[in-house]
Order: sequence, then C-alpha cells, then structure tokens
Amino acid sequence: MDEAFIENLLARDIRATARLLRWIDDGIKEARQTLKRLYAHTGKANIIGITGNPGAGKSTLTDQLITMFRKRGKTVAVVAIDPSSPFSGGAILGDRIRMQDHSLDEGVFIRSFATRGHLGGLTNTTTDVVHALDAIGWDVILVETVGVGQDEVEVQRLAHTTLVVMTPGMGDEIQAIKAGILEIADVFVVNKADRDGADRTVRELEQMLDLGHGAKPTLGEILHHGGKVDLEGKTEQSRIAPEKWVPRIIKTVALRGEGMDELFEAMDDHMVEYQKACENASFVEARLKQEFLEIYRRTLLNRGWNYLMSEDHIKGIIDRLKDRSSDPYSLAEQAIEALGKQQD
Amino acid sequence: MDEAFIENLLARDIRATARLLRWIDDGIKEARQTLKRLYAHTGKANIIGITGNPGAGKSTLTDQLITMFRKRGKTVAVVAIDPSSPFSGGAILGDRIRMQDHSLDEGVFIRSFATRGHLGGLTNTTTDVVHALDAIGWDVILVETVGVGQDEVEVQRLAHTTLVVMTPGMGDEIQAIKAGILEIADVFVVNKADRDGADRTVRELEQMLDLGHGAKPTLGEILHHGGKVDLEGKTEQSRIAPEKWVPRIIKTVALRGEGMDELFEAMDDHMVEYQKACENASFVEARLKQEFLEIYRRTLLNRGWNYLMSEDHIKGIIDRLKDRSSDPYSLAEQAIEALGKQQD
Repeated sequence: MDEAFIENLLARDIRATARLLRWIDDGIKEARQTLKRLYAHTGKANIIGITGNPGAGKSTLTDQLITMFRKRGKTVAVVAIDPSSPFSGGAILGDRIRMQDHSLDEGVFIRSFATRGHLGGLTNTTTDVVHALDAIGWDVILVETVGVGQDEVEVQRLAHTTLVVMTPGMGDEIQAIKAGILEIADVFVVNKADRDGADRTVRELEQMLDLGHGAKPTLGEILHHGGKVDLEGKTEQSRIAPEKWVPRIIKTVALRGEGMDELFEAMDDHMVEYQKACENASFVEARLKQEFLEIYRRTLLNRGWNYLMSEDHIKGIIDRLKDRSSDPYSLAEQAIEALGKQQD
Repeated sequence: MDEAFIENLLARDIRATARLLRWIDDGIKEARQTLKRLYAHTGKANIIGITGNPGAGKSTLTDQLITMFRKRGKTVAVVAIDPSSPFSGGAILGDRIRMQDHSLDEGVFIRSFATRGHLGGLTNTTTDVVHALDAIGWDVILVETVGVGQDEVEVQRLAHTTLVVMTPGMGDEIQAIKAGILEIADVFVVNKADRDGADRTVRELEQMLDLGHGAKPTLGEILHHGGKVDLEGKTEQSRIAPEKWVPRIIKTVALRGEGMDELFEAMDDHMVEYQKACENASFVEARLKQEFLEIYRRTLLNRGWNYLMSEDHIKGIIDRLKDRSSDPYSLAEQAIEALGKQQD
C-alpha cells in the first residue's frame, strides 16, 4: 500500500477518499488492504442513522442536519443508500441535487450508493464505507436509508443514534412496521408535522412505546443472546444500545427547519446516554463483537466464493455430485479446509 | 456411524427417522455424518412446495394431496414449517391435529418444524430434512410453508413443483406479493373458490402472467447470473425451473375435494416438463450447484462460528480490537486460515 495514499486519506483529501470509496464499492482487494491500514484511526466519528419510508422527508431532514452540524463546526459526511428497487424509488435525484447546496463546502462530503439487491442493501459495503470515513476524520457520518426491511437493522448496528422518520397519518404503517423499525429508533421524527394527524401519530407512537413495543432488549439479554444466529440469521441480531434510553418523539417540519432544535437536543441527550453506556466494558465489547461478526461473515462468504470460482473448483464439485461419488456435506468441508490454506 | 442405524433409516423405520430429524433440528454433528452416508440415496423423491398466506387453506390442501398420492400408491412425507412469528400464526395446531387422520397410515409421515426467526425459517434445516426423507425413500415430500418473504425462495429451490395457494379477493395482496411469490409458482391454486371473487382473482393472475410478472428467467440468464450474490445475497438467487412451463391457475375447494383432479393434472404436466428439462445437463448442474451452494454457505457459517466460540478465540479477537492492536479485516482472515486447519 502506497504510504502517500494513506497520508492523503488521513488529510481528508477528497480525491483519495473518492478513490477508496470506489474501490470499496467495486469490492477490489486494495480496498481491504487500505481498510486494514486505516482501522487504528477509527472510533472517533459520531455515526447517525436516518431511516424511514420513501416520502417521509429524510433527505430534507439530512440537509437540515448537515447545516446544523456545520454551525457547530463539525465536518459532515453523508452516506445515502439509494434504493434500486422499483418499490422504494423516490425523488432521489432531486433530493441529491438539492443537497448539492453544500457542494462548495469542503466540510461536507456526500456519496450515494446503489443497493445491491431489493433486500439487504447495506450488507456489502456500507460498514466499510463508514469505517473509512470515520478513520479519514469526518466528525459526523449520516447514514441515510429507505426503511424497507433489513436495511434498518444494518444501519442501527453501525449508528450510535438512529432516527426513524415518519409522517402524519401513517397509523396503519406504524402497525405494519412496529416489529422492526420501532425497535431500532432512538428518536422518532414525525416530519411534515404541519399536516393533519401529526398529533395522532405522536399519540400512537407514545402508546406503542408505553406498551413496550419499542422496548430494547437489555444488555444482559443481548449478551446471552449468542448462538449460531449471530452468523446465520443476521436479522436476529439484537441491537446494542444504551439500556436506559427511552425513545423520544419529535415533531419537525424539516422543509422550514421547524423542530430542529428540539431534535438536536434529543440527539445530544442520546449521545450522553450512549457515552455513559460506553463506560461499561461489556457494552463496548458487545459493539466490537457485532462489528467483527459482520466483517467476519462477509470475509467468510467472499473467500468461500472466491475459492469455488478459482481453478474451476466448483466444476469438480458438481461433477462429483452428479455421479454421486461424494456428497455436498463432505465436499463443503473439503473446500473450507482448502480455502483456509489459500491466500486471498 | 452405526451401520444398523443407517439400515433402519433406509428401511423407512419411523423411530430411526424421527431420531435423525431431531438430530438435524438440534444441529448436532451426528446429523451431518448421517446425511453424508445417506446422500448417495437421494434424488428419487418428488418434492412439492406448498406456500401461501395464513388462512389460504394450505393444510387442507396438503391433506387432500396426501390422500390422492396415497391412492396412487405413493408414500408421502410432509414437512410443515410452523411459523413462530406472531404475524403469521394461524390455526396451526388444529390443522396438524386434523392431518393426524393419516396417523394410522404407515405410508404417511408428518413433521412440523418451528421457524428459527421471523425471516428465513427454512434456512437452517429444511434442506437437510428433505434430503434425509428423500434418501430414506419417501416417494413424495410435501414442504408446506407460510408465504412471508424468504421462506418461499428457499422452498422453491428445493421443490420440483411449487404450488402457491391463494383465496378469492386477495387482489391487493397479489399486487404486494407479485415480486416474490409469483416468480416461484408453477401452479397457482385459487382455493375456497366457492367464495365471491374467485373468478376475479383468476383474471388478475392471468393478467399478471400475461404481463410477464410471473415470468421466470431463462436458464441462460441463470447460468450467467453467477457472482458473489450466490453466497451473499440469498434472495437474489434465481429459480432453476423448466423454461417452457407457463404457470397454471387452478380453482379448488380443498375442504370438499373440488378441483383436486385438475390440480393433479397440472402437477403431472409440470413434472413432465421438469423431467424434460433434466435431459439438459446444464439444468441438472445448475440445480446441483444451487443445492451445493446452500449447504456450503451454511457449513462456512457454522464452522466459522464454531471456531470463534472454541477456546474463546472471540475473546482474544475482541481484546485486540479493543486496544486497536489489530483490525477486524486481518483478524477475520487469520480466523479463516485457522478454522480451515481445525477438524469439525
């Protein structure tokens, strides 16, 4: 790895950063080599997840958050996961263009990534992108996703604070999503709160929180949660978040900047709780473990796949299955033993 | 492995079978050893997937299918994946009890398995259970699941023929599910067809098929589909099914056995197409590859997990992450090299 390149990155050079993110997105091995070098510099950024349905006004809110963090003198990087699915599309292009109001500000960096499939858009590279931006020295990293399924679960694992953005009159939707999205919210943002039904939406959220639907598992529950699900069933992973935090509900009209001070206050309060939680070694270890498991899982699957594809190993395996001279269980084990010996 | 146990299994001994399925469900290593021994005997069963929303009447239909296959002199094993999620619950217990009408028939074997989580209920063990029952010599294996997400994608990969069960008046739901479930259906069963709206549901399905929403990718597309998604993004895997088959739509009233002859005819016709497709070596290889990749993926993740948990390797890793003396990328690679050397 080129030392000058690493130095450029750590000096927040935009072109070097753009190149690294392209490498990560393309999945080439230079990305991984660079990430290894950068890792020691991670752990300083404040990572904030922003999720919610299309049309909830996430991009406008992100825009406001950028402005407010900039006023505090913080540099802000935005990682926007653009849905490629026809189901969750929206005014993506328009939003991105609007955000380019910040494009002359060197303290703002915005990158959109396409999701890889119609599920689990964050699986592959978002963790790496966030680690990279963290190491490079961006103070705040906003990770914006559309709220459809697995995405949120991935976001919340990265983020210190997660905002779930809703709009008035989403009562039915709240019912539908409560199992997933409510569990990950540190702050509910009822955006477009000048519309009819804002108070009703707030009340419904309050009721749900009272009923414990938004209750996070305790750290004890998480630590005992282990088992194979940690690698197998990614969606099963519990969130590692401060135990004592009760999710806040904030009304905003992001387009006019209304409610932003209240939102910021809630976010600050949450970070205080988060930092308190970090005084507990078990909490920090659980976060590191979760982070490691995700990278480990991806590395296992990538190396496993690369092995099969190299020297046409897969063809030999299928031939042996075809004449039933071996079985898939033994062949899988043999492949794993062999790939352990292979250099990536 | 005890030879007598294998012999008992191959003689379709019920107690030996029950024991093996328990081993598989518990994930103990004897299960895997037995599956290795049994694999050479697989490939004879006719595997039929039955999926659809709760309340669609899948269990009643399954009941009828059992009766009809029995009349043909076929032995029938039923693998029912019981949803543990509160969202997809139903009259499970009642259904199962009713099915016990067949409990005195030695040619029928019924087992329910709980899903592991609210997504991907089939991921862990259903493939193994079906392989086992196939090897043991059950002629027909009916795999019944509730149609919510990932489950269907798993079922359809195992099944030769997949039935998607609907009820009249599910128009809106059809819209919602078309992306996933329609792609996997070989036969649509509009059950409870004595209710209002049956013909409309049939028409809507027909329109959708005309519009190509139910179109399956061609084999060429599948073979070129490769890439990392095969291990990473399970939901991306295309279905490997006969190209020329146009999904049929059959109206039934399963409770009274109406429409069952027509359904059977459609299923028979589909199997003829399936067998024709098997004359193409690429088709057979693609099926074997998909089957292998699923087992390989699970083996990778299981061994990967077992390694981390053995001798407290995970603790050492977290310690090194905590003091940032290494990085998760390097530690993941080192773990993979080490696990390759370890015996399972």
